[in-house]
Amino acid sequence: MTNSRPRGRRPGRADTRSEILTAALALFSEVGYEKVSLRAIARAADVDPALIHHYFDSKPELFAEAVLALPVGDPADVVAQILDGPVSGVGVRAVEMLLATWELPTARERFTAMLRAAVGEPGAQRPLSEFLANEIYTKVAESLGHANAKQRGQLAVTLILGFALGRDVLQLSTLAKLPKAQLTAALGRTMQVYLADQW
Amino acid sequence: MTNSRPRGRRPGRADTRSEILTAALALFSEVGYEKVSLRAIARAADVDPALIHHYFDSKPELFAEAVLALPVGDPADVVAQILDGPVSGVGVRAVEMLLATWELPTARERFTAMLRAAVGEPGAQRPLSEFLANEIYTKVAESLGHANAKQRGQLAVTLILGFALGRDVLQLSTLAKLPKAQLTAALGRTMQVYLADQW
Repeated sequence: MTNSRPRGRRPGRADTRSEILTAALALFSEVGYEKVSLRAIARAADVDPALIHHYFDSKPELFAEAVLALPVGDPADVVAQILDGPVSGVGVRAVEMLLATWELPTARERFTAMLRAAVGEPGAQRPLSEFLANEIYTKVAESLGHANAKQRGQLAVTLILGFALGRDVLQLSTLAKLPKAQLTAALGRTMQVYLADQW
Repeated sequence: MTNSRPRGRRPGRADTRSEILTAALALFSEVGYEKVSLRAIARAADVDPALIHHYFDSKPELFAEAVLALPVGDPADVVAQILDGPVSGVGVRAVEMLLATWELPTARERFTAMLRAAVGEPGAQRPLSEFLANEIYTKVAESLGHANAKQRGQLAVTLILGFALGRDVLQLSTLAKLPKAQLTAALGRTMQVYLADQW
């Protein structure tokens, strides 16, 4: 590693991708998920906006890698998998996908850190909550035909926030010990209420 | 107000009650709900243990006034009211009682402050969560005959934590605007899952 990189070769620069990720992480953390555009990230990373699309298909995908640092892929695929099957299984499938992500290395730690940061600073943003609500759960509720899909998506996020807070931050004594099958059943049913049931 | 109070008149001292409350608030905040005994509070307040019973019927009642500073009365009465009616209405009744408390002056602010404090300090205790889980929701689930009542009680608390976090701390855009009837229906159904349903 030297500081004498050739100039004028941005598109081929080996670290352009990581510079975009760094700029995106900083912007999402400062400004939140909704208000950040790919154009603003390009500006912050000092690259051509078109170049972002060379590396990332969409804002949600860039967010997932920059902020979650998890290979969750395209959130649209997650939505499709939650919807793939009987409507009565939406809640359980949503929880199964969540748990699969939570089991990835460092995922719980990252989630907890984001939760602490969001709660600790009065002016802190909520990029992860907005991401999950907007790109996954609201889209699921929309696809199921609910007029109040945005409220449902945000309610679904409160389930996850509350469970993570209780288990990983407050460490309520029984939550970490819940067998996976029971957790999937219980959380799956509450997810079903918020995403799919009539009320 | 002077410093020259007569000595040896503890039982009649006008501020004994508030000294007990102050000592209780400090101890609950430092040590948590479960591990604090009335005896320890008496010691911290420098009063005879029997005197605490002169002012407060029980630890939960003392907690409610010291920490919540709310006239929620005896938590056993709350449990009884949640159970009073068809089992299918347990979730809705639990939420109605919660919302009634949340609507008391300063209740939401206090809850939010406690939430921030619990999340912000890595070693922070969780007196409110333990109080709600142990004295209210676990007892409801026990009365309904569930063997996993403690898990259910703690899961019920995660619903409240998550909703309060989403609405009052992260301020997710739609949650504060949910009409009370819809909120009661939605949160009531998820409460029903954790407190009463089989899974």
